[in-house]
Amino acid sequence: MSYDPDNIFARILRDEIPSERVYEDEDTLVFMDIMPRVDGHCLVIPKTPCRNVLDATPDQLASVMRTVQKMGHAAMAAFGATGVTIQQFNEADGGQEVFHLHFHVLPRHAGQSMRPPGKMEDSAVIKANAAKLRASVERT
Amino acid sequence: MSYDPDNIFARILRDEIPSERVYEDEDTLVFMDIMPRVDGHCLVIPKTPCRNVLDATPDQLASVMRTVQKMGHAAMAAFGATGVTIQQFNEADGGQEVFHLHFHVLPRHAGQSMRPPGKMEDSAVIKANAAKLRASVERT
Repeated sequence: MSYDPDNIFARILRDEIPSERVYEDEDTLVFMDIMPRVDGHCLVIPKTPCRNVLDATPDQLASVMRTVQKMGHAAMAAFGATGVTIQQFNEADGGQEVFHLHFHVLPRHAGQSMRPPGKMEDSAVIKANAAKLRASVERT
Repeated sequence: MSYDPDNIFARILRDEIPSERVYEDEDTLVFMDIMPRVDGHCLVIPKTPCRNVLDATPDQLASVMRTVQKMGHAAMAAFGATGVTIQQFNEADGGQEVFHLHFHVLPRHAGQSMRPPGKMEDSAVIKANAAKLRASVERT
């Protein structure tokens, strides 16, 4: 399977379409999922092209996981969460919808289920949660 | 949160309790989940102690992800899968049940849902799927 340089996340990286960015470093970018399954649901992606875990380089996997860890801590602090669920989907039959490697980081609370997938969140809510996450990651 | 050296996966690493091992290298071990949500559901863990992604070192994350990638390819080949879902849970409220870092690798097929969690599989089925995965990882 090849990499499509016009996938949505590639376009987000090039700022051709808007996103709520919350963190970036030399190798990775973090932005809010627009169909969050919990408050604070964000996505961690490499800045360089790869389709998913199956074709990622060791460097891409290592740098993305460092940022996943950072966002796990930041999201727990930002939302008073007591756990973090990480999900990562490969190929359509594995649950992947955008074909640029991404990890879902989901702050979790006791007794609180994830919402069903596929529901767009109000943009004001996304913006407010992005601001919380941004403030938290700056403190970590 | 601290690391309990008597957690089940630490005991599996020390061979104090049985498991269906399918692959290992210097840094990581892979064995079958005994409550598989799909056929071929396996777990990738570091050989060194850490509780989850929140306290893992960069080296632990990098080596575990290299093995996750390897097992993704091996599981797809072994089970004729067309996708892979990766799940990773942190702390009880994040879905974690055993407090030694582990990644779930789940080979997926079109139109096939995961089974509900928590159901023990027959050991003969686990053994047969482990054998398929072992043969596949040897070919990769």
